[in-house]
Amino acid sequence: MTRKLRAGVLGATGTVGQRFIQLLEDHPWFELGAVAASGRSVGKPFQRACSWKVPEPMPEYARDRILSPCRPGLEVDFVFSGLPSSIAGVVESDFARAGYPVVSNSKNHRMDEDVPLLVPEINPDHLELIPLQKKRTRSSGFIVTNPNCTTIALVLALAPLHRAFGLERVSVVTMQALSGAGYPGVSSLDVTDNVLPFIEGEEEKVETEPLKILGQYKEGQVDRAEFRISAQCHRVNVQDGHLEAVSASFRQRPSRSELVEALASFRSLPQALNLPSAPRRPVVCLEEPDRPQPRLDRTLEKGMATVVGRIRPCPILDFKFDLLGHNTIRGAAGAAILNAELLLARGMLEGKQ
Amino acid sequence: MTRKLRAGVLGATGTVGQRFIQLLEDHPWFELGAVAASGRSVGKPFQRACSWKVPEPMPEYARDRILSPCRPGLEVDFVFSGLPSSIAGVVESDFARAGYPVVSNSKNHRMDEDVPLLVPEINPDHLELIPLQKKRTRSSGFIVTNPNCTTIALVLALAPLHRAFGLERVSVVTMQALSGAGYPGVSSLDVTDNVLPFIEGEEEKVETEPLKILGQYKEGQVDRAEFRISAQCHRVNVQDGHLEAVSASFRQRPSRSELVEALASFRSLPQALNLPSAPRRPVVCLEEPDRPQPRLDRTLEKGMATVVGRIRPCPILDFKFDLLGHNTIRGAAGAAILNAELLLARGMLEGKQ
Amino acid sequence: MTRKLRAGVLGATGTVGQRFIQLLEDHPWFELGAVAASGRSVGKPFQRACSWKVPEPMPEYARDRILSPCRPGLEVDFVFSGLPSSIAGVVESDFARAGYPVVSNSKNHRMDEDVPLLVPEINPDHLELIPLQKKRTRSSGFIVTNPNCTTIALVLALAPLHRAFGLERVSVVTMQALSGAGYPGVSSLDVTDNVLPFIEGEEEKVETEPLKILGQYKEGQVDRAEFRISAQCHRVNVQDGHLEAVSASFRQRPSRSELVEALASFRSLPQALNLPSAPRRPVVCLEEPDRPQPRLDRTLEKGMATVVGRIRPCPILDFKFDLLGHNTIRGAAGAAILNAELLLARGMLEGKQ
Amino acid sequence: MTRKLRAGVLGATGTVGQRFIQLLEDHPWFELGAVAASGRSVGKPFQRACSWKVPEPMPEYARDRILSPCRPGLEVDFVFSGLPSSIAGVVESDFARAGYPVVSNSKNHRMDEDVPLLVPEINPDHLELIPLQKKRTRSSGFIVTNPNCTTIALVLALAPLHRAFGLERVSVVTMQALSGAGYPGVSSLDVTDNVLPFIEGEEEKVETEPLKILGQYKEGQVDRAEFRISAQCHRVNVQDGHLEAVSASFRQRPSRSELVEALASFRSLPQALNLPSAPRRPVVCLEEPDRPQPRLDRTLEKGMATVVGRIRPCPILDFKFDLLGHNTIRGAAGAAILNAELLLARGMLEGKQ
Repeated sequence: MTRKLRAGVLGATGTVGQRFIQLLEDHPWFELGAVAASGRSVGKPFQRACSWKVPEPMPEYARDRILSPCRPGLEVDFVFSGLPSSIAGVVESDFARAGYPVVSNSKNHRMDEDVPLLVPEINPDHLELIPLQKKRTRSSGFIVTNPNCTTIALVLALAPLHRAFGLERVSVVTMQALSGAGYPGVSSLDVTDNVLPFIEGEEEKVETEPLKILGQYKEGQVDRAEFRISAQCHRVNVQDGHLEAVSASFRQRPSRSELVEALASFRSLPQALNLPSAPRRPVVCLEEPDRPQPRLDRTLEKGMATVVGRIRPCPILDFKFDLLGHNTIRGAAGAAILNAELLLARGMLEGKQ
Repeated sequence: MTRKLRAGVLGATGTVGQRFIQLLEDHPWFELGAVAASGRSVGKPFQRACSWKVPEPMPEYARDRILSPCRPGLEVDFVFSGLPSSIAGVVESDFARAGYPVVSNSKNHRMDEDVPLLVPEINPDHLELIPLQKKRTRSSGFIVTNPNCTTIALVLALAPLHRAFGLERVSVVTMQALSGAGYPGVSSLDVTDNVLPFIEGEEEKVETEPLKILGQYKEGQVDRAEFRISAQCHRVNVQDGHLEAVSASFRQRPSRSELVEALASFRSLPQALNLPSAPRRPVVCLEEPDRPQPRLDRTLEKGMATVVGRIRPCPILDFKFDLLGHNTIRGAAGAAILNAELLLARGMLEGKQ
Repeated sequence: MTRKLRAGVLGATGTVGQRFIQLLEDHPWFELGAVAASGRSVGKPFQRACSWKVPEPMPEYARDRILSPCRPGLEVDFVFSGLPSSIAGVVESDFARAGYPVVSNSKNHRMDEDVPLLVPEINPDHLELIPLQKKRTRSSGFIVTNPNCTTIALVLALAPLHRAFGLERVSVVTMQALSGAGYPGVSSLDVTDNVLPFIEGEEEKVETEPLKILGQYKEGQVDRAEFRISAQCHRVNVQDGHLEAVSASFRQRPSRSELVEALASFRSLPQALNLPSAPRRPVVCLEEPDRPQPRLDRTLEKGMATVVGRIRPCPILDFKFDLLGHNTIRGAAGAAILNAELLLARGMLEGKQ
Repeated sequence: MTRKLRAGVLGATGTVGQRFIQLLEDHPWFELGAVAASGRSVGKPFQRACSWKVPEPMPEYARDRILSPCRPGLEVDFVFSGLPSSIAGVVESDFARAGYPVVSNSKNHRMDEDVPLLVPEINPDHLELIPLQKKRTRSSGFIVTNPNCTTIALVLALAPLHRAFGLERVSVVTMQALSGAGYPGVSSLDVTDNVLPFIEGEEEKVETEPLKILGQYKEGQVDRAEFRISAQCHRVNVQDGHLEAVSASFRQRPSRSELVEALASFRSLPQALNLPSAPRRPVVCLEEPDRPQPRLDRTLEKGMATVVGRIRPCPILDFKFDLLGHNTIRGAAGAAILNAELLLARGMLEGKQ
């Protein structure tokens, strides 16, 4: 590579934006070209406008960057979007129409028919939607999205199982971390000595996004996968790391060892291409009886893998297990960065002309 | 009633034993006749031997009671057992053979064929096992047990549904409180900023006990109910109150309003008899979208009810919902006290002869 | 008493306002005459406008009360104010000028020269400021305030020591509960696995308010007490109950037993008058080596007392100890209610003419 | 250096021992020569005998090491001791008499007259006690200790102030992390929604150890520093990182900027020698109004520094501030490793002959 591509970060002061800043430090392919935020922050240095909440310290390189407005005109090759959903829809479309590749973590365009809901290990072929999208918008820019934080941890484990055995039904009960609600997010008064059995809009996402991700690209569209998902979502008193209790049934019921083998041996395109942010193992299987645990296992594979444990037969569906994903790394900014790496590797990120 | 019956508490210094002491204060039918504990504590005053962990203050009346050994000979009419399972099996049998009614919270004898696993709202007819038990042991004493803390919260909600619609399959994922592990129980280092996806032996209890409780007493035995349960149990950072995410399918699928009606209108024998510890409503249904919550709802009906919320259709089974029970009140000592009240009301607790 | 006085609650939907509602249920002298809140809530039923955060359930009697605006005109005999400081200053003055007795928990008027900063056990004679205040404002209404939540727990212990031995220097390091910050208050992301070493404006209040409270009323003014206080305030991950590590030196250094005796035997006017909310013991001394603890001791004396423990000599000042107060009961709404009870007992709350 | 020295770790399976294992991975001067533990673990592989509690994953290199008994005979050049105080006294003396340098984190020998209580930044000259110690024990082995976790965080900040301005009085109130109590340590039931105002033996250590550390070595002995310390110790619901609220008075009262300068510019021998584990800055000063915070600041300088903030005048003593130290890194294993590095740099760790 002759030079690093310049990435803009939209919504840079938010919790997802902060993760972009942290993960882009020393990235081998990308450098921070611009930070952009909403009205009140524009013109201020990043460290002044931002209440830093990522556990790792704020990288030196970003401290004095001046915040731009979230409008096309940034001197960058592409943008990452960590914008809140209240404005992401319009702003991302504006950037795409202005010729920017937009690699978004926001929910707004995920289910658009010609927008890939991309997980590089699972559906890289969905990138074929992009020429159609460009054609529709008559622009060289485009939008690529990554899934909801709960969805992605789940779907990384479902994908190899679906390919191998054909999913029929998936039941998932989540115990989600506080950081998933952003900042200030959940009041300490609500969650101390407590569990919250409701997260607005979350169950709908978990019940629909996997069907698009695991769907088949065919002749210009993605046919939804045909299995059923039921989700019950909870917020627990954990800083980072969504834990999910899953049970699933299959068209061809595997043995336990076949199921473990399918998960543990799962490797895909990002591993073959050796993308910088790709986990060596997209799914890590633990055999200890009391794992995965959020605090102990969320940073395995630098937070880019789904960690699975307690695999055992289910008296109702075929098998049940617990899985864990780092919701602000693989569940947000890390997922978008991996998406951008795949785009670059596929020659689709030559940058804004 | 001419006089209060004298209750002994076995395992009085443990967390369940402490709840017995607290709940027996000012009980209209029972008074504390003796406190008994293991070797090192014998002969000490209760307040010296006991590290009090119940949120309510230690009742004055118990402070200076001297601890007896856990051996028959106590001057009481019956005993409550909050003994640890390592010794409960033998000690409870000893007391029963010595002529004491034993109202136990321990797991050891729950699945014995002629021992009632009693929930007064559900299976008071299982008390007919007691004459058979007495006959087998050739004693006027006997053992009655209450279910595991997770089971009882679940089965109080399942019972009216099973009666009305016939359960087929029940999937339950639990988020259980710290007090369920006793004291010292879970280390703070293990559960701070964490969830533990494993509780030894718990899933087995939850998958089997309800089938006995909801079974039919017929000709000297209890035929197990015939539906399937799958449990996935977790420990979360909550002081008291087990939260359970349930989904269920039925032989005759009800409408949502029929299901709510069956739960909310559930009344049974303890309510009809107006037993002192009986909740007015064994099942409380909440309609707010984010309830039940452990900290807000665990003390409804003085901790003696199961609180249900978020009732909605399930894409896999028929309906899903969250339920909550107070694990150290209805889930332990409170359940045993209600059992004793039913025994007394039925004339089965005339006391040790 | 012929009839209960009607109390209005200003700021009824806030966390302090909710405590007023909860504590006024079944009050022997007062009844809820009106609930008032800010613009958006006006006209709604209380239960719809309020996100209830008090651990006890919302009392039935308040659920359907319609919220009025915070403007004079309420049909009540006096008002309690739990208003945020951003508006309390003006609104409370408006009510006082309109003839209402205002019993306030807000900070705005605490240090006004002719406004009593009242703690009924300590400075009931400061009520003599009220005629002066009425004269200045040419109104039959007036304002009485209670101290900051941290101050009041501290000053209840300092008062008997100051009277008996003459305070010279007081050093206090606080570990304050989350509820002290209101709702939503502290983000769970900020305080999980953490302590916050700063609470805006808190140290200033703790270093000055006690000097007014313990000051001498003389000829129309309160002369500040003359000792020095140093405060270092922290927020910890506790729901309710401020813990304070105190050390103090005295003009006449007492023995340890004299100091304990002064604290434990402290009784004052509210106890003599048997005011309904008065704690039997304003200061409770515990001798166990590891007390007081917020979760175990905050509700002693129904949350109206200061609980002291670990009294021991200090190598620098004379004695050191830990104290605990319930910040939303004696530290807020409960303090104001006790103030109103004293006003009534003194004939100063005949109500708005 | 021609080869790495082989370090044995006594008490390897405990929480301090685990930190030794983790910090020794890839150490430039030391390699793990042996792991030793108490009876039941001997003969087992480390990963089987150890319940790993350090947040970082268990290093690969240690997993299969077989545990030896804690008796001389280990094939190592020196030993680190993370033994519990119940056995450390005798076992460490045994190793020293057998010719091993013992670098201990245990409390047993800290106050022995000829045992250095070593903080390399503060009192490297106390190593002159070692020849005397060897002479007394007639051995080539010896014991060096590091302070208690709370002491060391405090004394790193006190040292430059004492040198520059002469300490007179120091008051410290601590809010200590759960990991300081070892494993299982504090029960989750005790500390959830709570603060514990008592840690056995802790205040005594904090009030005495600094006086030895800051004492003068003169003619074969250490004269205690002559200032007074008062400590009040609390346990809070934080995983790692002891926070301490300090106030201090001085013989020559500095200005605030002089005090900050003395802290922030503090450098000493470990920095001059560039010891591998030496923090670049032994004391880090933060100017933000709400720092230091345990979760955000405990890993500054890899957990080897004391972090100071909120420096401001004190109405009673001269200045007050908050400080933070990582209790299991600089407060335990990291301190011992730095001690060993200094010993090696000074030619005092040529190893067991």
